Amino acid sequence: MDTCNKISKFLQKSGYECRVMGVPKTIDNDLFGTDHCPGFASAAKYIATTTMEVYLDARVYDTGMICVIEVMGRHAGWLTAATRLANEKGCGPDLIYLPEVPFDVDKMVEDVIRIYEKNRKVIVAVSEGVHTKEGLFISEIGAGDDVAVDSFGHKQLGGTALVLADILKKATGAKVRGIELSLMQRCASHCASQTDIDESFMAGQTAVIKALEGLTDYMIGFERVPGKNYKCEIDLIPLDEVANTEKKVPRDWINPAGNFVTEDFVDYALPLIQNETCQQIVDGLPRFAKLKKIFVQKP
Amino acid sequence: MDTCNKISKFLQKSGYECRVMGVPKTIDNDLFGTDHCPGFASAAKYIATTTMEVYLDARVYDTGMICVIEVMGRHAGWLTAATRLANEKGCGPDLIYLPEVPFDVDKMVEDVIRIYEKNRKVIVAVSEGVHTKEGLFISEIGAGDDVAVDSFGHKQLGGTALVLADILKKATGAKVRGIELSLMQRCASHCASQTDIDESFMAGQTAVIKALEGLTDYMIGFERVPGKNYKCEIDLIPLDEVANTEKKVPRDWINPAGNFVTEDFVDYALPLIQNETCQQIVDGLPRFAKLKKIFVQKP
Repeated sequence: MDTCNKISKFLQKSGYECRVMGVPKTIDNDLFGTDHCPGFASAAKYIATTTMEVYLDARVYDTGMICVIEVMGRHAGWLTAATRLANEKGCGPDLIYLPEVPFDVDKMVEDVIRIYEKNRKVIVAVSEGVHTKEGLFISEIGAGDDVAVDSFGHKQLGGTALVLADILKKATGAKVRGIELSLMQRCASHCASQTDIDESFMAGQTAVIKALEGLTDYMIGFERVPGKNYKCEIDLIPLDEVANTEKKVPRDWINPAGNFVTEDFVDYALPLIQNETCQQIVDGLPRFAKLKKIFVQKP
Repeated sequence: MDTCNKISKFLQKSGYECRVMGVPKTIDNDLFGTDHCPGFASAAKYIATTTMEVYLDARVYDTGMICVIEVMGRHAGWLTAATRLANEKGCGPDLIYLPEVPFDVDKMVEDVIRIYEKNRKVIVAVSEGVHTKEGLFISEIGAGDDVAVDSFGHKQLGGTALVLADILKKATGAKVRGIELSLMQRCASHCASQTDIDESFMAGQTAVIKALEGLTDYMIGFERVPGKNYKCEIDLIPLDEVANTEKKVPRDWINPAGNFVTEDFVDYALPLIQNETCQQIVDGLPRFAKLKKIFVQKP
């Protein structure tokens, strides 16, 4: 959205007439000014589904087992919080750590040991972006200054689950598995939410219509209509207001101890993951749309 | 199956009348005497589907990208070979390495660089169990002797993708991602094959019927009926013959260079992943069956 804003301002300064509308898409769900972002709900559905499956897998043997599931999210914990939806079906994590709350490794080890001694099974969901109160990411604890940087200058994260699994293995002697949901959480279209797809379509369509009507410098946002049944309407938010402001999980949607997510998040996210897509399957595998280049001769 | 066999022999020696039938289940698909094993097809369907999705994800940006996808399989490459099914849809890996062929790190780096220089995108599928001709697993290259051992005395593997990604990052300077399909490949029931589920049911049912008829010491196997349309019949294989014999991917289903899988594997595996389950969904999430304890009073 910051890029949209910069391009539009530059074109205006250069006297080039062009209308710029921001169509949001980010599974991170961290854009300011909109109830949620296209893409988030489908990733959340995959993450909650997978968490349920991993929960059951961890219970096929009666030996002890600790699973650390690492979910994307550099500064905002929306995706990691989505594991909480699995608790509604009795197959969710015991502990959830988001980057919104400073992460204390010793406290986490205590939490895990307490649950492990009681249940012999612990599922931990952790955001890749959790960091100590000094601002140190978990993947940096081992790696020191040797952390790669992406093209935006953000530190490339990853490895949080493995570092924590290693710490927990040493602290408990138990079988511990670190699982990174990696690219799958953002590309598992076979597990998409139809609600998400419908809203994404609506967002793109509205952007084109509004631009044709003469509007510019707005982002398409969603506004939730109050009431018992879920409904979202389109909202237009000035790009200036959206750019470079991150929306995080509210502190009061996280429990006081900072190791779980409250029912407020469930009320927010559960409506978004409803309805399954009728994905086209050919030969037992997904059929994806292909855009073909069509050469149109100019008149 | 070895355990089935030992239990039965022990009971016979002890004069305890009991009939023992082996009902196979292993996503590894490495049991001798059967065309394939229940569980394999569903894991294969998930692996092929996910490979297609990762392939597309790697193409959303026009920057260079190398992905190493690590698939389960200690000694047999069946699951890793399943990534080859994605090639049938044009979204498959460029290179596939199975444990059936000695793994040469330098040769792999050469293969990747050659493809990277041409396409700027490389997808590598690699079995967790690939090892050098000296018998060294890839995860041991970094870890030395510090490798955990499971309750069967097998070395606990994992980390192959990360070690290879690290090697490739240093060799190419490109963006490289190591992805471990981890527990998801064996528990993703939302992506199961109905053919697999039908056959699994048939295997269990037949075992009970045959035991009631008085048979013992057999494993239920599948025999593929020759012909154009896929069909499997039940076969009974003496446990003695099955125990401790591993079935590997035939060498001639792997290309001479040892870095890809031939059409023979596709002919074998594609029929197995056909048909989708009608998984029950409640509130946008899977509904799993629950077995309840029912206390029956003895008469």
